[in-house]
Amino acid sequence: MGDTRGSILRAAIHQFAESGLQQTSLRSIAREAGVDPALILHYFGSKRGLFLALVRQKLDEVLAGLLGDVPPTKDIGDLLVARFLALWDGDRRLFAALFRTAMSDESLASLLRTELLAELVRRVAATHSTEAERRAALALSQLMGMAVGRYVLGIEPLASADPEEVAADVGPTLTRYLLRPLPPPARPGGR
Amino acid sequence: MGDTRGSILRAAIHQFAESGLQQTSLRSIAREAGVDPALILHYFGSKRGLFLALVRQKLDEVLAGLLGDVPPTKDIGDLLVARFLALWDGDRRLFAALFRTAMSDESLASLLRTELLAELVRRVAATHSTEAERRAALALSQLMGMAVGRYVLGIEPLASADPEEVAADVGPTLTRYLLRPLPPPARPGGR
Repeated sequence: MGDTRGSILRAAIHQFAESGLQQTSLRSIAREAGVDPALILHYFGSKRGLFLALVRQKLDEVLAGLLGDVPPTKDIGDLLVARFLALWDGDRRLFAALFRTAMSDESLASLLRTELLAELVRRVAATHSTEAERRAALALSQLMGMAVGRYVLGIEPLASADPEEVAADVGPTLTRYLLRPLPPPARPGGR
Repeated sequence: MGDTRGSILRAAIHQFAESGLQQTSLRSIAREAGVDPALILHYFGSKRGLFLALVRQKLDEVLAGLLGDVPPTKDIGDLLVARFLALWDGDRRLFAALFRTAMSDESLASLLRTELLAELVRRVAATHSTEAERRAALALSQLMGMAVGRYVLGIEPLASADPEEVAADVGPTLTRYLLRPLPPPARPGGR
């Protein structure tokens, strides 16, 4: 039973990465998973329900892989970038498909904001309690931009550089955003 | 004549920002511009041709506004971010619509890569000739991520922070990417 659910999710991830949300049908997922389409509806309610379950599973993997057991060292940025690339370099098409969907689907965008960002904020606050929201938003902006350049737009040399090189280039940015003093927030009438 | 072409482009930008590429019809653009739909085809060939003309015009504005007369000062990053926000803060919906389309349209993505990136590289090379491609790709990754967080995903506090505050936070990242020494490139077998 749990294995059937897992097979459906794996087939869905595979087909979604290949064809995107619109072009993927429950029927073709059912065929690849070797189950009846009615079983997918039984487990997930709808294609959209299946898709959100898939995102949630991937998000859990990313959160565990990215944020699990991160020491607040001075190389935290390099470490986060290296982990992010280790998670997604082998799954570039899935990243691109997920990102495209998040761009045009408000409920997925909202899931990313509330879950991914909230967890980042919680972790940042644990090591550096001042302005955790601001730090997490900045770190996420650089991680997203890096991933879009590397996986979606294919901007060279970022797209094919060794992960170590990308981590060395981009890591210090995340370290600064997460741990270093930031400029004082603007005050109304100030600056 | 030139003014008719301009009216069509302005109407197209307005409707495209409101409804996205798919939902915008030549007919409704023609209505807003007060012209016959056949005239749009005469000038632009197709809805896609009109869209690419719109992107090219916006790209020229962005390049001129962003890169025109940038002194290679130590605050170059703050200046670039401030100019980027001055260009797009008033046009958030258009940015989001353009970015969404670029994510799923390879020919638009390719236009951004070749035009925007090539120009960035040319400018970076003019002030700092080593590794202009690498520096430009990194700078673009942070600018894009910042814009996606602020305009598309609405990640707070990045989405509603004062432009001056965002420039102070993100600017130093661009300055480092564009002007500061970067780690030596990874060599095969090295590191």
